[in-house]
Amino acid sequence: MTEPCDRDAIELRRQIGAGELSPVDLVESCIARIEEANPTVNAITATAFERARAEAREAEAAVRRGDPLGPLHGLPIGIKDLSETEGLRTTYGSPLFADHVPPADERVVAVLRRAGAIVLAKTNTPEFGAGANTRNEVFGPTRNPFDPRLTCGGSSGGSAAALACGMFPLATGSDLAGSLRTPAAFCGVVGFRPTPGAIPTETRGHAWSPLSVDGPMARTVADVALMLSVMVGDDPRDPLSLGIEGGPFRHLEAPDLSTLTAAFTEDLGFAPVDDRVRHAFRAAQHALEPAFAHRASFTVDMTGVDRAFATLRAVSFVAAHREKVEDTPDRVGPNVTANVAAGLALGLRDVAEALTVQTRVLRDADAFLDGVDVVICPVAGHPPFPWEDWYPAAMNGAKLSSYFHWLALAYGPTFAGLPSVALPFGRDAAGLPFGLQIIGRRRGDRAVLSAAYAIETWARQRGFGRPVPERRSQRT
Amino acid sequence: MTEPCDRDAIELRRQIGAGELSPVDLVESCIARIEEANPTVNAITATAFERARAEAREAEAAVRRGDPLGPLHGLPIGIKDLSETEGLRTTYGSPLFADHVPPADERVVAVLRRAGAIVLAKTNTPEFGAGANTRNEVFGPTRNPFDPRLTCGGSSGGSAAALACGMFPLATGSDLAGSLRTPAAFCGVVGFRPTPGAIPTETRGHAWSPLSVDGPMARTVADVALMLSVMVGDDPRDPLSLGIEGGPFRHLEAPDLSTLTAAFTEDLGFAPVDDRVRHAFRAAQHALEPAFAHRASFTVDMTGVDRAFATLRAVSFVAAHREKVEDTPDRVGPNVTANVAAGLALGLRDVAEALTVQTRVLRDADAFLDGVDVVICPVAGHPPFPWEDWYPAAMNGAKLSSYFHWLALAYGPTFAGLPSVALPFGRDAAGLPFGLQIIGRRRGDRAVLSAAYAIETWARQRGFGRPVPERRSQRT
Repeated sequence: MTEPCDRDAIELRRQIGAGELSPVDLVESCIARIEEANPTVNAITATAFERARAEAREAEAAVRRGDPLGPLHGLPIGIKDLSETEGLRTTYGSPLFADHVPPADERVVAVLRRAGAIVLAKTNTPEFGAGANTRNEVFGPTRNPFDPRLTCGGSSGGSAAALACGMFPLATGSDLAGSLRTPAAFCGVVGFRPTPGAIPTETRGHAWSPLSVDGPMARTVADVALMLSVMVGDDPRDPLSLGIEGGPFRHLEAPDLSTLTAAFTEDLGFAPVDDRVRHAFRAAQHALEPAFAHRASFTVDMTGVDRAFATLRAVSFVAAHREKVEDTPDRVGPNVTANVAAGLALGLRDVAEALTVQTRVLRDADAFLDGVDVVICPVAGHPPFPWEDWYPAAMNGAKLSSYFHWLALAYGPTFAGLPSVALPFGRDAAGLPFGLQIIGRRRGDRAVLSAAYAIETWARQRGFGRPVPERRSQRT
Repeated sequence: MTEPCDRDAIELRRQIGAGELSPVDLVESCIARIEEANPTVNAITATAFERARAEAREAEAAVRRGDPLGPLHGLPIGIKDLSETEGLRTTYGSPLFADHVPPADERVVAVLRRAGAIVLAKTNTPEFGAGANTRNEVFGPTRNPFDPRLTCGGSSGGSAAALACGMFPLATGSDLAGSLRTPAAFCGVVGFRPTPGAIPTETRGHAWSPLSVDGPMARTVADVALMLSVMVGDDPRDPLSLGIEGGPFRHLEAPDLSTLTAAFTEDLGFAPVDDRVRHAFRAAQHALEPAFAHRASFTVDMTGVDRAFATLRAVSFVAAHREKVEDTPDRVGPNVTANVAAGLALGLRDVAEALTVQTRVLRDADAFLDGVDVVICPVAGHPPFPWEDWYPAAMNGAKLSSYFHWLALAYGPTFAGLPSVALPFGRDAAGLPFGLQIIGRRRGDRAVLSAAYAIETWARQRGFGRPVPERRSQRT
């Protein structure tokens, strides 16, 4: 029988509600796993074990009393270290915030706790989330649970590695250029980038920018959807709030794949993709594509997206970090410094042109997805690389044009405003997890999760399921 | 008895539905008024009289047959010349589009026609809507119906002047820095700037920008709300679409003003305001303020809004018009040319800072309006000025810092993302219409319209109602 910490959230919630499992035992199982696995992967930046134990005892009592229980009642959760947590150290991966202990939870944390989740720990992230390798000056690198010489991806790398190791069943992530999708793919877990506004936030530096979003991470599509169900909603502080109802996400219905139209694409027509990724994707496509009755070619015009994305990304970095780079240059890392410098060299005209490209791609993608249910492509353009490298040194022998160009498969959907699931789909030729990206229509969050749920079920039955890392412990 | 063209839309629609008035007679009444009044005010740029007559005959037949009738069945409407209209000349006030006849209606026109409105004419606007004086190289200036030596305001000046003259009961406008509020105030009609996303559009150059919106114009608040009821909705092409239901706008209920909290402010704490406007506003405040049981001080911090607004406005102008200015400089007017030049001199850093200010003001305003129902201030910082001036030459003796700085009372709410009603409130000391601005909470469109409805009723009963211009005709 699996240990509680390794079980799916939906099963755990059922067992807790039925009185078959005490939240106290679940928290202890998760703490034991953190103590066992974290010394190797270094996914955890701060812990709230005593508060979690107290909350678990209270959760257990609530079950005994027959209280109404929230959808996440008693479920331990990890929170990415970019989110403010009441009384729990929040560093943003930056030496400038090394001792920062927030007085209150930000919205996304508050709604999860209100739904019954128990915050167990914070998870590692690169400095201010910049980059797809989770390492920083405060905590060092988070390692890949399948091979500790490799990166777990980023910037939600701590959450992904912790989920893969069974430290908790649910974790938060955030995503600009694949920050929750890439680590999910590298660690063999599920991450969901929702439509901008599905999960309101009061923390976005530019309230009307749709690029950065929060999202749920877990080990199954249904668990991700369960978590999403309490994260969506409405918040007057977020002008992009869509006011989506959460309930329907707790009851995903897998559609018959043979009723759906899919567009398979190796590179979204513009992304640099490593040959090893192409190879793994072709194998996946060969197996999966016949399950769909209807297939389409991906025809959205992505011309100009690389440059436009870099420009709009730079706008955010200049706004958020220019003063830090100018005032305390020795306490800001190379990715953030480089982003700010690149932004300061650009003009208003570059921004105007970037916004024009974004609008064109948004409308093209909307029109394309009017007749197509899902676009399927790889999550990441490159397999996991050594953690010492800030980014892949080269691709198919050629140098990359920026430290994030290899993430074009992820920032393409971001730019078009589309929801996207990173779904584990077996292993690549090197035995590492391979992640498929399932992209849906804007505001079609439930539909794309349902399609991913069907693909996940299909894949499990055919040996392409979620890979599980070997248990590694420095103690044994 | 009033002529049909002078009646309110709601009354006209009732009479049409009851068979008391034929849409054919109504269209003829409006055409006669256009022919009488337009030579003086020059509000109309193109007419569709024959098509309108045919549609009116069909509308009459539909009533006779007992067909289900749309909410605007048989009501003649004017469309601002920035909106594409099927088969009807659409110039954007630019010589470059002087002969442009679109093949199709844009969404906002299509939904109005689908609801039964009959497009009778296009209304004048400055070139590409730039500026608050409605004059351009294609059609010349639109004059103020109360004094043809003065401007009608802009950029929806043709719509406002036409409504004041009784040319039709409904017209479209659009609004960035007061483009429908200022002319409504100058001409003594009602204009509503809705929350961004309430009226979806597929035409915004930058899909995620909340600055420019479409809005309804009419002679009463209830007519504006009726028109809004068919303009709101959802459109997949607009990522800011709020998906608001239209029905409730057809049944405004005026709240008891003594249950509301109002914050009166002469200048939103930052806007330059001419002494004549301050004087008129104080008189209005003196009369109206006691009707509210609760009053608050306006405390939203507008620091930095002038510069930030100018920057974001320039982003839109550079994106939309840079190529025209570069390729055909002699066919682009001074406002557009100046806006593009100003934008090209700015950097990405300016944009990043402007977006940061916008976000701060948005959140401050949201928090402030949590405890306040309406903010009440003047619509425009300056009374109507000679039509030959592009903008007021000075204010209280001092030169203005830009051609749109006198519009700060209008772009303040724009920047904060708030819905706002321009409501006629009697006349100023010079006998010209005076407009009150009633600002509500973001997404509180129905609430702010309801409050404006109550204020309109209150004002009518006390002699502060809508002023009506003298009938002027060059023919008689």
